[in-house]
Amino acid sequence: MELLKQRILKDGEIQDGGILKVGSFLNHQIDIGLMDEIGRAFYELYKNDGVNKIMTIEASGIAIASMTARHFGVPVVFAKKAKSLNLGSQVYTSRVHSFTYDRDYDVTVDKRYLTKKDRVLIVDDFMARGKAMAGLLEICRKAGAEVCGVGICIEKGFQGGGDALRAKGVRIESLAVLDRIENGQIVFR
Amino acid sequence: MELLKQRILKDGEIQDGGILKVGSFLNHQIDIGLMDEIGRAFYELYKNDGVNKIMTIEASGIAIASMTARHFGVPVVFAKKAKSLNLGSQVYTSRVHSFTYDRDYDVTVDKRYLTKKDRVLIVDDFMARGKAMAGLLEICRKAGAEVCGVGICIEKGFQGGGDALRAKGVRIESLAVLDRIENGQIVFR
Repeated sequence: MELLKQRILKDGEIQDGGILKVGSFLNHQIDIGLMDEIGRAFYELYKNDGVNKIMTIEASGIAIASMTARHFGVPVVFAKKAKSLNLGSQVYTSRVHSFTYDRDYDVTVDKRYLTKKDRVLIVDDFMARGKAMAGLLEICRKAGAEVCGVGICIEKGFQGGGDALRAKGVRIESLAVLDRIENGQIVFR
Repeated sequence: MELLKQRILKDGEIQDGGILKVGSFLNHQIDIGLMDEIGRAFYELYKNDGVNKIMTIEASGIAIASMTARHFGVPVVFAKKAKSLNLGSQVYTSRVHSFTYDRDYDVTVDKRYLTKKDRVLIVDDFMARGKAMAGLLEICRKAGAEVCGVGICIEKGFQGGGDALRAKGVRIESLAVLDRIENGQIVFR
């Protein structure tokens, strides 16, 4: 998606260690006009797939899911990062490893809000190693929900998570794929 | 807002201890059509106030802020619940007490995304004792941003947070105010 790539080049910040920060427009402050175009792009990619629910994970996926759901006219469900070990039997859970914080956490969805009737499009802001996405896919599997595919704003291609899931047959559509960051410059795939 | 009140009566769940749960349509699964009407309602209330930024706190406020920002045509900024004590000098912070989890946490906003040029509408799903809202107001004060007012979907009137802030001169507009829960029935103010 050219609009997103241009915005990344204009306003993305590259920190030490080649980390791209997009907090000025995507996941802390949010440009809602851009977000609406992102939602429209995911709609164009998946409009013929019978999607009846948009899924994401808190927190930064929620704006993307909301603006995508608006184009589809379907509800959102967002997975929660569990604060408690006492989750009860009313939720689907999956254990996820966070490399950012170097710890495991559980993601959960209430069983009533994800069922075998659902045809799900999963969206998120970033995909790196794909660990959070694997957790969401596992929750859909447990619920018996059909995953139509995945929509990612920015895929860090060099971390391999997207390609590993593609190799397993998951449809992953990324609006911008970073191939590498070279001398402080972003090179898209 | 009649649409929201009717939906609360239809789909809200009252748990032991008089706790209202609205996860089926507002803050876990999200009815985006309803959310868009909520955004429109906040726009109608604040459209003449020069709002140029919608502020909220992660996670469940983000969908509301996004669908409100769409009507105003302005950006969102959401405060983060800090995971680290090492916040650095680049963020505004406020300490908030959570009665739900009986612990304190810090909320933070990057200083670049909230400035004295901002005229802010703060939105959230619930207001009870108003502790999180007080934290957001403190962050706005530190940033020198003007707070045009607050928009709340469901105010628990019996917990007094909204009225305490009104008494301090803050404009609080709540789309549904719970007066009490009596014999398992919701009574609106």
